[in-house]
Amino acid sequence: MKIIIVGGVAGGMSAATRLRRLMENAEIIVFEKGPYVSFANCGLPYYISGEIAEHDSLLLQTPESLKQRFNLDVRPFHEVISIDAEQQTVTVKTPTGELIESYDKLILSPGAKPVIPNLSGIEEANNLFTLRNVPDLDKIMIKLDQIKSGHVVVIGAGFIGLEMAENLALKGWKVMLVEQAPHVLPTFDLEMARYVEAELTNKGVEVITGQSVTAFHEKGQVLELSNGQTLSSDVTILSVGVAPDSQLAKDAGVELGLRGGILVDQNYQTSQKNIYAVGDAIVVKQEITGQDALISLASPANRQGRQVADVIAGLDRKNKGSIGTAIVKVFDLAAASTGLSERAVQSLGYKHAVVHTTGKDHAGYYPGATDIVLKLIFSPTDGKIFGAQAVGQKGIDKRIDVLATAIKAGLTIFDLPELELTYAPPFGSAKDPVNMIGYAAMNIAEGISQNIQWYQLDDELATGKVLLDVRNPGEVANGQFREFIHIPLDQLRERIGELDASKEYIVSCHSGLRSYIAERILKENGFIVKNLDGAYSLYKMTLPKNIIQP
Amino acid sequence: MKIIIVGGVAGGMSAATRLRRLMENAEIIVFEKGPYVSFANCGLPYYISGEIAEHDSLLLQTPESLKQRFNLDVRPFHEVISIDAEQQTVTVKTPTGELIESYDKLILSPGAKPVIPNLSGIEEANNLFTLRNVPDLDKIMIKLDQIKSGHVVVIGAGFIGLEMAENLALKGWKVMLVEQAPHVLPTFDLEMARYVEAELTNKGVEVITGQSVTAFHEKGQVLELSNGQTLSSDVTILSVGVAPDSQLAKDAGVELGLRGGILVDQNYQTSQKNIYAVGDAIVVKQEITGQDALISLASPANRQGRQVADVIAGLDRKNKGSIGTAIVKVFDLAAASTGLSERAVQSLGYKHAVVHTTGKDHAGYYPGATDIVLKLIFSPTDGKIFGAQAVGQKGIDKRIDVLATAIKAGLTIFDLPELELTYAPPFGSAKDPVNMIGYAAMNIAEGISQNIQWYQLDDELATGKVLLDVRNPGEVANGQFREFIHIPLDQLRERIGELDASKEYIVSCHSGLRSYIAERILKENGFIVKNLDGAYSLYKMTLPKNIIQP
Repeated sequence: MKIIIVGGVAGGMSAATRLRRLMENAEIIVFEKGPYVSFANCGLPYYISGEIAEHDSLLLQTPESLKQRFNLDVRPFHEVISIDAEQQTVTVKTPTGELIESYDKLILSPGAKPVIPNLSGIEEANNLFTLRNVPDLDKIMIKLDQIKSGHVVVIGAGFIGLEMAENLALKGWKVMLVEQAPHVLPTFDLEMARYVEAELTNKGVEVITGQSVTAFHEKGQVLELSNGQTLSSDVTILSVGVAPDSQLAKDAGVELGLRGGILVDQNYQTSQKNIYAVGDAIVVKQEITGQDALISLASPANRQGRQVADVIAGLDRKNKGSIGTAIVKVFDLAAASTGLSERAVQSLGYKHAVVHTTGKDHAGYYPGATDIVLKLIFSPTDGKIFGAQAVGQKGIDKRIDVLATAIKAGLTIFDLPELELTYAPPFGSAKDPVNMIGYAAMNIAEGISQNIQWYQLDDELATGKVLLDVRNPGEVANGQFREFIHIPLDQLRERIGELDASKEYIVSCHSGLRSYIAERILKENGFIVKNLDGAYSLYKMTLPKNIIQP
Repeated sequence: MKIIIVGGVAGGMSAATRLRRLMENAEIIVFEKGPYVSFANCGLPYYISGEIAEHDSLLLQTPESLKQRFNLDVRPFHEVISIDAEQQTVTVKTPTGELIESYDKLILSPGAKPVIPNLSGIEEANNLFTLRNVPDLDKIMIKLDQIKSGHVVVIGAGFIGLEMAENLALKGWKVMLVEQAPHVLPTFDLEMARYVEAELTNKGVEVITGQSVTAFHEKGQVLELSNGQTLSSDVTILSVGVAPDSQLAKDAGVELGLRGGILVDQNYQTSQKNIYAVGDAIVVKQEITGQDALISLASPANRQGRQVADVIAGLDRKNKGSIGTAIVKVFDLAAASTGLSERAVQSLGYKHAVVHTTGKDHAGYYPGATDIVLKLIFSPTDGKIFGAQAVGQKGIDKRIDVLATAIKAGLTIFDLPELELTYAPPFGSAKDPVNMIGYAAMNIAEGISQNIQWYQLDDELATGKVLLDVRNPGEVANGQFREFIHIPLDQLRERIGELDASKEYIVSCHSGLRSYIAERILKENGFIVKNLDGAYSLYKMTLPKNIIQP
């Protein structure tokens, strides 16, 4: 069997090596249009700061090593420019001309390419870069070396934008980050993203949200924002998203779907016979919604590459879709998410509840414990988990991984307290933050607690409800709501007579634990009361121009 | 309602605080025979090294704080000495005399106490200590302060023994660790425990395995081992296990089960009306086997405490049992496990397979990546996961937590590659070690790979099979099998003619990845071949007196 693979990174190379292990005698050719195969695309931003010091360490394999170990015919600088699906051949542009190769099976792993918006002056900008591969990185490095110092504007505060901003700032560049959405990390919810924004600001990155770049002036030295403001930029990094690199597939008559993504069946088979596709370019099912989705993440791409090899080798494999799990390091903070955001669930119209908790990455009495702010979006009726987000310095990956596993397995909030997670003081707590958020969600689902979200507070107070802050006086002195009454939790039982039983109350504390206890005391005393979810510490992150560090 | 709780630590205190939140008007009395409630029992060893510096930080709550916040009547130095289950009263020994209290509901949370074997001379030993609570710790600290320097012998290399050995060594004591089992961490399998043994040895702890202490001489200054050897000991820590502290329950007519554990139904109800029990003292179901088990871990105790409160408050809760997840830090290494060990599965007679993988805690090209040795025990027929173990410097807790969640959810090995875990270079890999071990297990289950375990190698070779080492010459020079032939993997295709097609082969490399590729090449060329699981790096850990660091 002769198998041709188009694209020699994550999905393509996973397919190639797995195919070889299953089919020692197959002829396997990998065409890669760029100079490198199997490079560490997720590592590229870290080379800018020098965190990854060696250029070579970005290159995981070479055509020579792949030949030697896997007997693969890997050809960089070979761009497949057309496919004849009928004849089962591809036409390839080589460094010296063109060639035609036939195939029995063709695997497309073209990936996704940076979106370049059609903005006034963008074509004349000579200091504008995107980052997709090693040559892109090299171009950026040359430019930075040339100008030595100055202002870098990063447009787009998604994962790549944030990593670029961090690594440029670590290298000493003055970085400005511009994001069209109301907050950085547009796939996260605002209040969680704000922790990342605070970290960026504290580390010297200037963050502008709710503004897009509308025009490029003076060959890109001046950027105009939607509010009319202008920014001067010595180097501009454009990272406003990616789109499936599917023109080749389209030209071959392969059916496309959502935003030009390649349509495949559960076996990665496209609409054309013997043509398969994997990776960032394909449309997948969002497992929780069942809707079509484009997910540009390395892990699904690698899995799909392996699975398509299995399919071609005759093993039974199905693409089960993706829930979408992601993490980003931003200086000393990590932010991670799995499943759907609250905003996504709202727009889908699912009945849902939300709960935030703050816990420690490990036992508070063991040195070095840090806060984890965890958010869970779930169905209050059957307990189905829609999604989770977390921010903090340590242990963020672990908690989201556990919740991603729970979602994948169909566990509900009622199962989260049952999870038996590793516990010793250096690693966790007897009640892990994942257990705790399960308890908190159960309290909501079972009616033991009612909460409101930060964005509901003003409306609730406008209806005449009273905000009761149960923090200690010292905490209140350090930062407070506009309008509230104050009784420290430990005085609440004795001072309950000060409350007006005809009023309804919202309770708050620092992170929501004491206010929940207050809520229970008041409820058991006949009051109508709700807990401000996440309490003051979360609420204050959502205030405009907030730059307070968690 | 009047509720009495016996025991003011994990399970008891979780019950008390949850009860208060659900029943503001209940009378809740907690009797604790010791001086402290709600102390950090898992943190005690770390106070010895000074890692936890403040004595007070071991005390999470005080009777005063619990009164103020939860309106609990918490009484230390109050030992419940008898229960009249008929009259629903308890008799309590107080600092000044005795009192009798009636109850509507009684919750027993007595915990487990250190086992003290009946050995010759043990009663005369005046330098022998166990560690269960803060007073025990204080006694040890006083003794250490008195003698200032010398030899400490720790008997028993379970979790507490290891933590004591580490923290004593960190404080500069000369520590000898004696374990009756063939390896430290008796609940782990030998080859995994050996990594911990190597770490202990490298950090200066002398480890003696396969020997028990049989007698104490000279008031405990001399310990006699089962092989006749004697050890001199200035201080001896006895940590050979714990047993349910169930005498009070037994005297009250409560039915006991396995090793004196308190029998409870799914609602924590004992055989006596209105008497409940939680924590280390109760018999639980091992979820995977369905068998009775005693599990002395803080997490289940805390969960049970909360659940029994819910039951008493009228909520629907059931104890679903435990799978048993644990972790221990030993100097720079962590070792964790969930579910059943290979040895346990063997003795149960379950049809099973085992696979070991070595991966990195995060992307190898990002600085600071360290090895994770991961072991999975599973059914090769339906893919059910029986258990997992891991050792390494970083990310051990995360991988075992994900696998513990998978086991709890009933996921199989076929689901592990599907898990979408957080990936960015500082946190993981596009194919996480959990995904990878899923792939490896699937290869076994689907017949793509056959492996043998380290303890089967000699027998296999004795039947005439040939061991083929596919490492590079430099690796072979640094340590090798007794009897093998050597062809580096990248030369295998061209040198395949050197192999004797009439022989059967075992392939090995350093960690098992290259040997698996070799296995596939040979299989596809018609050879009968098996992979030495975990390869040389694992095999060498199992050699006698091995002290090589992974």
